[in-house]
Amino acid sequence: MKKGTVRGCQLSVCGWKERRVEWRKWGRVNRQPEQIRETFLEFRILQKGEGSGGRLGEIDTPHGKIRTPVFMPVGTQGSVKAVSPDELRQTGAEIILANTYHLYLRPGHKLIERLGGLHRFMGWDGPILTDSGGFQVYSLAKLRNISEQGVVFQSHLDGSKHFIGPEEAMDIQQSLGSDIVMAFDECVSYPAEYEYVQRSVDLTSRWAERCLAHMAGGKQALFGIVQGGVYPDLREKSAHDLVRLGLDGYALGGLAVGEDRETRLHIIRETVKMLPDDKPVYLMGVGAPEDLVESVPLGVDMFDCVMPTRNARNGTLFTTHGRMTIKNAQYSDDERPVDDQCDCYTCTHFSRAYLRHLFLARELLAYRLNTIHNLRYHARLMAGLREALKDGRMDEFKEAFYKAQEGNIEERGD
Amino acid sequence: MKKGTVRGCQLSVCGWKERRVEWRKWGRVNRQPEQIRETFLEFRILQKGEGSGGRLGEIDTPHGKIRTPVFMPVGTQGSVKAVSPDELRQTGAEIILANTYHLYLRPGHKLIERLGGLHRFMGWDGPILTDSGGFQVYSLAKLRNISEQGVVFQSHLDGSKHFIGPEEAMDIQQSLGSDIVMAFDECVSYPAEYEYVQRSVDLTSRWAERCLAHMAGGKQALFGIVQGGVYPDLREKSAHDLVRLGLDGYALGGLAVGEDRETRLHIIRETVKMLPDDKPVYLMGVGAPEDLVESVPLGVDMFDCVMPTRNARNGTLFTTHGRMTIKNAQYSDDERPVDDQCDCYTCTHFSRAYLRHLFLARELLAYRLNTIHNLRYHARLMAGLREALKDGRMDEFKEAFYKAQEGNIEERGD
Repeated sequence: MKKGTVRGCQLSVCGWKERRVEWRKWGRVNRQPEQIRETFLEFRILQKGEGSGGRLGEIDTPHGKIRTPVFMPVGTQGSVKAVSPDELRQTGAEIILANTYHLYLRPGHKLIERLGGLHRFMGWDGPILTDSGGFQVYSLAKLRNISEQGVVFQSHLDGSKHFIGPEEAMDIQQSLGSDIVMAFDECVSYPAEYEYVQRSVDLTSRWAERCLAHMAGGKQALFGIVQGGVYPDLREKSAHDLVRLGLDGYALGGLAVGEDRETRLHIIRETVKMLPDDKPVYLMGVGAPEDLVESVPLGVDMFDCVMPTRNARNGTLFTTHGRMTIKNAQYSDDERPVDDQCDCYTCTHFSRAYLRHLFLARELLAYRLNTIHNLRYHARLMAGLREALKDGRMDEFKEAFYKAQEGNIEERGD
Repeated sequence: MKKGTVRGCQLSVCGWKERRVEWRKWGRVNRQPEQIRETFLEFRILQKGEGSGGRLGEIDTPHGKIRTPVFMPVGTQGSVKAVSPDELRQTGAEIILANTYHLYLRPGHKLIERLGGLHRFMGWDGPILTDSGGFQVYSLAKLRNISEQGVVFQSHLDGSKHFIGPEEAMDIQQSLGSDIVMAFDECVSYPAEYEYVQRSVDLTSRWAERCLAHMAGGKQALFGIVQGGVYPDLREKSAHDLVRLGLDGYALGGLAVGEDRETRLHIIRETVKMLPDDKPVYLMGVGAPEDLVESVPLGVDMFDCVMPTRNARNGTLFTTHGRMTIKNAQYSDDERPVDDQCDCYTCTHFSRAYLRHLFLARELLAYRLNTIHNLRYHARLMAGLREALKDGRMDEFKEAFYKAQEGNIEERGD
């Protein structure tokens, strides 16, 4: 497969060894021989969706297999808020995301490394993807100063001063020991001027190259992050720069940051086309059920978002029939489960009335039961999407998804 | 067995039927025939401890058996804070306490009754004891007005005005459907004048009689609460009044409210002697490990306290070697479990370093993992005390208990 090969090429299903050889060939074309490295991530496309281009796949990682398309719950500080690793697994989660920025600040990546890495520290033996810290540096930290070298910023916790550049981001993620690491990027706010985004895309490309060059040893796969805001040509430039590097996967960053839904879907559709067909595509920070249902047919393989967990703690539950605000008076003596289609611990053990009581009484159990349900909802939705891809009935699935929500009188609770 | 029979009498081990007959006989002596009722609680003493007078026993309730001496975790608002019913069971809990006052105010006892009772509402199928609401009316509510009839008070939640008397307390607990209900009492603050406590003891006795008279139908056992502050003769008067009523069990109330430890143990020792040997003795609101270890040999069968759960949420863990303040810097890279003797989920899965991190990061999982550990600690301590009673080696057990804590440099974390 040559550089620049895009979607629509022959279906690529190959084993570890062949895959590695092919990858090396491609690597040789674009980079210095000393940059060639083994890949520790194996992506297999099992089936392509009809028409629209979604795909059913599998990713092998050092910590097990992921079925794609997949939703990754967010474990910001080394814990998916309110649930235990056992429960997480029971909801159907196969991979989680952890935040480099947060863990770097507290408890510190070196401490986690000394204690055997993040998997062991948090008791999760499945795959972990860590983000680069780029997004949090821009969204959470104070007084950031961006230069060619990297970013100087102040901790949101105590105001202490820190520096993270591409090399530091790789070192931190290596200490954490995640299965998939993200290249350090600049995440531009929305809206942003074309010229700013243009310079930023170039910087992100140079940083990605430095990330790749710095990754020595370790069994980690490296994903690049396509930026470019809402400007199609800059997205193309960014994708082109990253694909040249022959990375293990490609993410779409800088979306769901305020742009309208049509624009977002357009950018996703066009950007995915610029990415190699045989690498996972990861849409960052997007997790509303409607967005998952719309993005999978566009060829997205991976998602992450705090929405199921954060909404749960705010009392908004996702159901087959739409969003449910559990504190509403209408549930005060409602004996039914949250979702009659759901098989989660919460739905099989507790009534809406009890969940409403727990939430109003601010009982800690409320946050957990709600979180279990929402994570299970997302896992079931992804399983449904995978089934639809397998059976070639995505249009039917989407129609049923929207139809089941008709008549839901509650407002959107995002 | 006659009225006034006290500890030291012949060991009473009898089955349901015999027990009931015997109880009726006793009842006939003291009360009007129309007050005679069946008992729905069967207490069997399996073995008496050597010398000091502790006893190993069993209580049968409509929701299963309890092994005594037992510690009851507190589920104030229909949830033992931070843990699920499944986890609660796994920690070894056999019975829990729920608060009448809280559940009456929110979500309301009538609602819980409509939804099938508290067991079903909260998903706990084991025995439940509900307190009378008396203690909370005095400790939480605003603007209370005590009369012969009962107490008028303002809700701590919204300031709304309410009335609870003996009959109301029984009705509420009947709606909740608990296995053991507590008679409505006045819990006097400490210190209190002799004359006030004297009047209060008499009021509590009259209220207990009204509670008993009001209890019609239902499969609930009724416990009286011995009050009397730190005045031995008033404790005796209170015990005498209640024992006359032939209740299913007797609680010691108004302790651990500020009196010193020696006084407390003295009151316990003397009061227990005034209670019938064949009924469970319940020490309310006491749960420090040292207090459990000292009170069991005095003949206490049941305890409840928020200490294990509240301390857990404050980051204080109970261990074989004494209390541990998990946020302390010394645990930052400590890979060991909280307690090397403990078999709980927390100790078998997570390090002190991780628990410290979760607590400092205010992760919800921290409160839960800490709670699981502390509840398991209390359950294991009670199991150890039961073993010691069985094997007649209580002194040895106590010695080992205190010896294991020697050299613990941490302060008390209550």
